[in-house]
Amino acid sequence: MTAAEDLVRRVLAQLAEATADPPGVTRDAYGPGEAAAHAIVEAEARALGAEVSQDVAGNLFMTLPGKDRGAPALLTGSHLDSVPHGGNYDGAAGVVAGLAAMAALRAAGAIPPQDLTVVAFRAEEAAWFPLSYPGAAAALGRLAPAALAARRSDTGRTLAEHMIDAGFSPAAVTAGQAHLDPTLIGGFVEVHIEQGPVLEERGVPLGIVTAINGGFRHMDARVRGAWAHSGATPHGWRRDASVGVADLMLRMQDWWDGCEAAGEALTITFGVLATDPALHGGSRVAGEVRLAVDIRAGSEATLARAADALDAAAAETGAARGVTIEFGPRFDWAAATCDAGLIAALLEGAQALGIPHVRMPSGAGHDSAELAAAGVPVAMVFVRNANGSHNPEEAMEAADLDAAVRLLTRLASSSLPRR
Amino acid sequence: MTAAEDLVRRVLAQLAEATADPPGVTRDAYGPGEAAAHAIVEAEARALGAEVSQDVAGNLFMTLPGKDRGAPALLTGSHLDSVPHGGNYDGAAGVVAGLAAMAALRAAGAIPPQDLTVVAFRAEEAAWFPLSYPGAAAALGRLAPAALAARRSDTGRTLAEHMIDAGFSPAAVTAGQAHLDPTLIGGFVEVHIEQGPVLEERGVPLGIVTAINGGFRHMDARVRGAWAHSGATPHGWRRDASVGVADLMLRMQDWWDGCEAAGEALTITFGVLATDPALHGGSRVAGEVRLAVDIRAGSEATLARAADALDAAAAETGAARGVTIEFGPRFDWAAATCDAGLIAALLEGAQALGIPHVRMPSGAGHDSAELAAAGVPVAMVFVRNANGSHNPEEAMEAADLDAAVRLLTRLASSSLPRR
Repeated sequence: MTAAEDLVRRVLAQLAEATADPPGVTRDAYGPGEAAAHAIVEAEARALGAEVSQDVAGNLFMTLPGKDRGAPALLTGSHLDSVPHGGNYDGAAGVVAGLAAMAALRAAGAIPPQDLTVVAFRAEEAAWFPLSYPGAAAALGRLAPAALAARRSDTGRTLAEHMIDAGFSPAAVTAGQAHLDPTLIGGFVEVHIEQGPVLEERGVPLGIVTAINGGFRHMDARVRGAWAHSGATPHGWRRDASVGVADLMLRMQDWWDGCEAAGEALTITFGVLATDPALHGGSRVAGEVRLAVDIRAGSEATLARAADALDAAAAETGAARGVTIEFGPRFDWAAATCDAGLIAALLEGAQALGIPHVRMPSGAGHDSAELAAAGVPVAMVFVRNANGSHNPEEAMEAADLDAAVRLLTRLASSSLPRR
Repeated sequence: MTAAEDLVRRVLAQLAEATADPPGVTRDAYGPGEAAAHAIVEAEARALGAEVSQDVAGNLFMTLPGKDRGAPALLTGSHLDSVPHGGNYDGAAGVVAGLAAMAALRAAGAIPPQDLTVVAFRAEEAAWFPLSYPGAAAALGRLAPAALAARRSDTGRTLAEHMIDAGFSPAAVTAGQAHLDPTLIGGFVEVHIEQGPVLEERGVPLGIVTAINGGFRHMDARVRGAWAHSGATPHGWRRDASVGVADLMLRMQDWWDGCEAAGEALTITFGVLATDPALHGGSRVAGEVRLAVDIRAGSEATLARAADALDAAAAETGAARGVTIEFGPRFDWAAATCDAGLIAALLEGAQALGIPHVRMPSGAGHDSAELAAAGVPVAMVFVRNANGSHNPEEAMEAADLDAAVRLLTRLASSSLPRR
């Protein structure tokens, strides 16, 4: 077993044991679970002789010095928090892959042409704070001060309070004190388990990510009709909100089918359906249904078309079923395109190493999107994983992560293009 | 103003005032609200010189003696309980109409050919006890003993306990002690507000009911797919329970459209839709949706066809959307056909009195269904009412109830056909 393979198995096992919370693991953002994971990773980095530092928000940076310390660094890594009772690999696999690449370089006695920095970002999982990538944003000095007032879903305490408890400085974060300067980063390559079934179903260990989908979401949309007696209200007089929501959903499914036939990639999800328990009943025509709408795509143009299609479907459903539809507040997040040079280098590397791979978009959001927004060239490597993510059944084979480590090690061994 | 018109306005006002519970009225079954309504009605009957009696379950019988006291009686009336914060007319209008007919006969110095008995049944609203017509069933000696263990939704105490508190005898009910002998009843004509919009929309004051729909209900049906990440799970890999429920609902809407085009009357309602709040989310493909299915029709053959259509739709949806559907426990209630002779007499009477009317089925269940099941010839007269029932906005015009009273008075004045 190589030093990298040994590190992968050993550190993943340590993380699982230290943060076990059956079923699964719990690594709470800015809480004891995340702290335990950071401690394990930091000790491993020190054992490898890396330079270790932490920023004002608690993000952890572990650097293997390169030959040219003035050259823009290769940044890799991911986050170490998990959802409550989550799996062992979402986030952690990327940090472990970075350390394993460092171990491989050390074992080979190789000094990379530029610094290799493995980062462990804080608080990526929105299950804890209702924010997109606050750890990565703080590392870049980009976290909006208002975000520090966001409350953790379980404790009800603010992000600022949790930062202080964990020994960090929300005041410095508010002041925009940044650890990372985008102009000094040659590229950020994030290794992450795939959260969908594509690699598993295709029998391929790695995916080279072309873009990180953006999207928009309505968490509190309403289809409104009229409450009525189920027996006493004939078909033609109904304004049935349940039928309205069904009609809206199938119109959007049909539109999605059309997009796919035309080669336009996106996802459309109605993840919440709810009649009001205080008002609904078996003998009552539903007068209102609450629903959530989540639409994601790699291109802003596709998202704009989807928003138009949603409005058009709502108008058609309203006319056909006698209901009104209000989508309510809309939350947007930007799509990020991966860097063409990094994608090309990763594809060339996988080819040279004989690792089967596919190109694919990332439907889920990642810290990489925050770095891309700050102007850093980013790329992502997805690792095959069964059973989805955010649950104890995440099932990544260590051998598949080893493949990602070999690819990352190869990339770190060559000079990054000057920006 | 006639004596009948005066009684209608006066007693409805008394009931509204005595049982006010803003918004609306609350006349709780076997509780103070229902008791207050019974006291008002009983006093009015005594003032009219009626013979008054109460049975072991607290149902109230008020009889104006006829010329031939051995002839089968004409029974009329309804129930006096309401849902919590309900309207003033659902149930009470029928009892008040019976008293008003009695007042009209008294004012005209007329003695009807057979006894006219106005009945106020107990506990018709299933909002209190999860039972179908326990008061009417007890009056007929047909209440299943197990029903006495049913608990009231608000107090958690049993029907037997509530009966005892109100001064009645669950032991005698259990023994099957009946006040009503179906063979001694010439017919039961129940006046009731319409609970749907048909009369209001058609601009007609009265409906002559042809049948009381039966039906079946699944309160805890499930569409099951697979929970998945909304962004990371492509279209073709999804087993989306939300899309499954939409597909099932629209298949049943289409089937319903076909039935209506073929002149087959029924209602299909999905009154409850619910993803699990502990599992659902904006970024999660729904793995399970709970729903309620309620199907009603005047004919058992139509209900059987609907059950087959529901099973077929579930199989088609399952195949098309990759979900499984389990309907779970099924609760059935029988349809009742109204008596042809009584319908003919009511239609003839409305024609003679110049009262606009339509023939229509009752989609909702009523005490009449229990009497029909016991072999009593039944009929119902629906009174126009805006805004549905079971809410404080019930809006019946007293003039429309007057029309029902005139029709009832005419029927009571003639000999009922021998059975």
